[in-house]
Amino acid sequence: MTAADFAVLPVYRAAVEASWIDYNGHLRDAYYGVVFSDAVDAVMDHLGLHAEYRERTRCTLYTLEQHTHFLHEVKHTDALQVTSSILDADGKRIHLGGRFEVDRRDAGLITVATSEVMLLHVRQGEKPATAAFPEDIAAVIQALKLSPGESTAWGPRSRALELKRR
Amino acid sequence: MTAADFAVLPVYRAAVEASWIDYNGHLRDAYYGVVFSDAVDAVMDHLGLHAEYRERTRCTLYTLEQHTHFLHEVKHTDALQVTSSILDADGKRIHLGGRFEVDRRDAGLITVATSEVMLLHVRQGEKPATAAFPEDIAAVIQALKLSPGESTAWGPRSRALELKRR
Repeated sequence: MTAADFAVLPVYRAAVEASWIDYNGHLRDAYYGVVFSDAVDAVMDHLGLHAEYRERTRCTLYTLEQHTHFLHEVKHTDALQVTSSILDADGKRIHLGGRFEVDRRDAGLITVATSEVMLLHVRQGEKPATAAFPEDIAAVIQALKLSPGESTAWGPRSRALELKRR
Repeated sequence: MTAADFAVLPVYRAAVEASWIDYNGHLRDAYYGVVFSDAVDAVMDHLGLHAEYRERTRCTLYTLEQHTHFLHEVKHTDALQVTSSILDADGKRIHLGGRFEVDRRDAGLITVATSEVMLLHVRQGEKPATAAFPEDIAAVIQALKLSPGESTAWGPRSRALELKRR
């Protein structure tokens, strides 16, 4: 298997549980995070950072930061999916973006949220320490990384949260 | 009751459920969001944006954006609490910050994560629309708002997520 076999990250299809709907009648903000965490697990499996790898190497990914934009309400009846993109990456970090989409028939597939995470490759143990990705996995990650232009066009992107006066 | 009675927001104490611990042995990233969402509900109750208010006015808060910094691992045995601060606010928006803390005995109370949300006051219905806070609640919010200096010192703060080359 070569890096080219991983050219597209799998789309993660989420099952929205009834208990995730809040008193506003929509998917509660926190559960976008649960859905994305599951989507990141699927991305890790795809990249080769799966359970067997984690057990064998004691290496895993830690989430350092996350920024989410909530754009449209998600209802219990919506079929929710997350398309992940590697916005950037180096030898031990992945800047991953997730686009949350639902099919609204008339309007087609609309983006209801975006979320970015900064993920760090860590070797666990007495004292967890950052670790470089193995060469084969690093090659897969680099092959999947968006071009700078694609990455810039992806959005809405993370930014400093502030209350702009209008 | 006057705005002065609300001078400090309540500290939210979270019960970390065993199912929230991931394969890394720590509180899974997504569940910081679940904890903070519950903490925000407690803040809403404190501000008077409680269930009775929501039913009577059809108004509620929508989360527009969220940015979280994961600073230290949280274990199942940790007593986790969230201290919320109003970093900024105007007539219909609250920029709320949550400081996640655990008591590590030797090290004392340490900040294990911070999260910021931008919350918008919305009147629900056929077509949800932004709505100004009622005067009494607006006064409470303004009385609780940190000074610009305190707000600047609060952190780590939200920022554009990017992979800085080292």
